[in-house]
Amino acid sequence: MALIHHPVLNRNGEIAAAAVTNLDLHDIARAARTYGVRAVYVVTPLEDQKVLAERIIDHWVSGIGSEYNPKRKEALELIRIQDSLDGVLTDMARRGAGTPRTVATTARSRSRGIGDKMLKEKMATGAPYLLLLGTAWGLAEEIFDSADFILDPIKGISEYNHLSVRSAASILFDRLLGNRED
Amino acid sequence: MALIHHPVLNRNGEIAAAAVTNLDLHDIARAARTYGVRAVYVVTPLEDQKVLAERIIDHWVSGIGSEYNPKRKEALELIRIQDSLDGVLTDMARRGAGTPRTVATTARSRSRGIGDKMLKEKMATGAPYLLLLGTAWGLAEEIFDSADFILDPIKGISEYNHLSVRSAASILFDRLLGNRED
Repeated sequence: MALIHHPVLNRNGEIAAAAVTNLDLHDIARAARTYGVRAVYVVTPLEDQKVLAERIIDHWVSGIGSEYNPKRKEALELIRIQDSLDGVLTDMARRGAGTPRTVATTARSRSRGIGDKMLKEKMATGAPYLLLLGTAWGLAEEIFDSADFILDPIKGISEYNHLSVRSAASILFDRLLGNRED
Repeated sequence: MALIHHPVLNRNGEIAAAAVTNLDLHDIARAARTYGVRAVYVVTPLEDQKVLAERIIDHWVSGIGSEYNPKRKEALELIRIQDSLDGVLTDMARRGAGTPRTVATTARSRSRGIGDKMLKEKMATGAPYLLLLGTAWGLAEEIFDSADFILDPIKGISEYNHLSVRSAASILFDRLLGNRED
């Protein structure tokens, strides 16, 4: 998966770059490791944000944190930092992970959305998939334009659907990758 | 649901009181509102932690935050603070919510665990249920002893199961309360 910090929307609907959040990295990496996600890309073109993300990862993967909490190391070592979605795709190809189908996620219904059950069936073929999650107010339009699929929003039982990106990632991993009872 | 900060285990397996975390309250309240959970109890006997939780809630429910982000208000107004699990049960009775079946959650398999599908069927009868989630290293033994049910751990596809309490709450709401496609 890729956690996109740019291009995303700000609260006014303008294209922006969001700040990297420590807890996004921890929560999403832990959920990713639990559900067998191969890599968590943190996408930001901002140098200071890349440095921040690297510092967090280094602390837990090779620094003091790795001895204090080895389980956290197993999670955070899934994280890779890239400038852009193109950078992610290039990195995946370089590592022999092939060219993935990209799946954009959204909290609002869109015309060409597909359901999680259908996506799970497609993913079961074993082809590489890259799930794109947006920080701030969600992915910018250009990401939807270029995505192979757009996943329908997570619906609870009310009209309210303001999940954190951490909650959304966790629920999507469970829906798409979990071995559910049913 | 109740987010238990005491009695929980610390990293050495001793009974402890965990600190209230701002993002736990936000993430869990947002997920709770999305899935129609009636209330999120924050359980801590520590006065300074209760004050901290109250300050967070006040900021978003009646303070500046409520104008900045009304959606956040809708979520955080679900939160109620109590000293103990007994306090939660008393408060529910006082509000006419009845006496709930309590469901303890855990990351480790235990002998009398039940699956989420079976629990979902039981909950469908409409009787009140109270889901108990532990912070820190999980709920203390006395909570399991007194719980009506113990929910099987969330399993991903690996042996790794170190989800944050925020992720675990989100996934459980989706499994137990969501209107899934399948």
